[in-house]
Amino acid sequence: MNSKHLRKGSRQPSPISKGKIRLYSNRFCPYCQRIVLVLDAKKIPYEVVNINLVSKPDWMYDKTPSGKIPALELDNGEVLYESLIIADYLDEKYHAHHLHSKDPLQKAKDQLLLRQFTKVINALLKTVSAGRVDNDEADIITEGLTTFEKELANRPGPYFSGNKPGMLDYMIWPWCERSDVLKMFGKEYILRKDKYKRLMEWRKMMMEDEAVKKSCCDVNTHIKYLQSYRAGIPDYDLLS
Amino acid sequence: MNSKHLRKGSRQPSPISKGKIRLYSNRFCPYCQRIVLVLDAKKIPYEVVNINLVSKPDWMYDKTPSGKIPALELDNGEVLYESLIIADYLDEKYHAHHLHSKDPLQKAKDQLLLRQFTKVINALLKTVSAGRVDNDEADIITEGLTTFEKELANRPGPYFSGNKPGMLDYMIWPWCERSDVLKMFGKEYILRKDKYKRLMEWRKMMMEDEAVKKSCCDVNTHIKYLQSYRAGIPDYDLLS
Repeated sequence: MNSKHLRKGSRQPSPISKGKIRLYSNRFCPYCQRIVLVLDAKKIPYEVVNINLVSKPDWMYDKTPSGKIPALELDNGEVLYESLIIADYLDEKYHAHHLHSKDPLQKAKDQLLLRQFTKVINALLKTVSAGRVDNDEADIITEGLTTFEKELANRPGPYFSGNKPGMLDYMIWPWCERSDVLKMFGKEYILRKDKYKRLMEWRKMMMEDEAVKKSCCDVNTHIKYLQSYRAGIPDYDLLS
Repeated sequence: MNSKHLRKGSRQPSPISKGKIRLYSNRFCPYCQRIVLVLDAKKIPYEVVNINLVSKPDWMYDKTPSGKIPALELDNGEVLYESLIIADYLDEKYHAHHLHSKDPLQKAKDQLLLRQFTKVINALLKTVSAGRVDNDEADIITEGLTTFEKELANRPGPYFSGNKPGMLDYMIWPWCERSDVLKMFGKEYILRKDKYKRLMEWRKMMMEDEAVKKSCCDVNTHIKYLQSYRAGIPDYDLLS
């Protein structure tokens, strides 16, 4: 998972062997982490090839449009991309440790929450790239977190999926893991611990999950990476 | 399906009876038509309440955020929205006439195509609201249609899903039904019939499908509606 990131000019890894799957990933990409979490939670064996996002190897462009990652390569040569599509594929293909609810209504409601969380992600991205929180973004983040806080109150818990994390938990986790980086901008007040008590409890419980533990980074590592990213020289190999 | 569109001040329909489902819809909304197609293809009984989009009844805002439609109301009072989420829900809940492929890989590949089609939809929307086709939009439309043309060549056909339409066929249909309105802007050359032979053949076959026939409008009706829409006074009740 912490292998060096391949860049333009790097040799293409050999074809994958029969029965294996390979994830083209990046150690600090939250969308890639979604797939790492799903693979680890479902205990699916896989190999990782890390890709440098500012200097992608040419052969990556032959695998997905614009060399997009995360990308999942199968042993028949097919390559899937788009994190949510890969996650759904893995959950449907590998039946052990089902992550989506088997109740179609519950699954649909989780999907709606995930759509709302996508808006929170976009607001966070704007915040990180601007280095400040504008009012519009603050509203979207607050509204999103309030919805999720209420939702936890209405579910048996402690996870959104019940007594162990499910698809919704894992799909939102990568950004929740990084939420403390807001203190880098002096904006930690957005995530007021008194206002989002249940979410804070959920976050603590998620940290105890085996799959989460495997890919989780501490806040200082995230801040160090983010500083290199904002300086225009992202240090993807920080943990290699 | 052609009932008058309820507007601000209209009385709220009575609660739905046990075992029934209700679609809040609009006769000319292509996203709503997606759900109508799924319901009809799966032969699920449903009732329709049409909503005026420029003057929504107040009670619609209690059902979905911003009174969004299409919205599917269940007999337990729950309301789902977002066309793709509703479509997936219906396909998982009602097993007869399965629309998604049962092969997870095929389903994932169809989902990727659908993502690409969403870009075509957005380019078409820009075109319709601007009344002209800019180069960027023309490129996106051409690239999308070329992908779909190639895809049809690589599949057994005649439909994307084989010998009868499946989820991908129905999810892209509403915009394909409307494609001839481009002639309203003198831009029909974008859909060159010689370049997209298989897509044209597919379009003809879709017109023969029972579910498509039920909601399909002729091009003149679409143009008439679009003219009223562009004039700022959308005539949703054109067919009532």
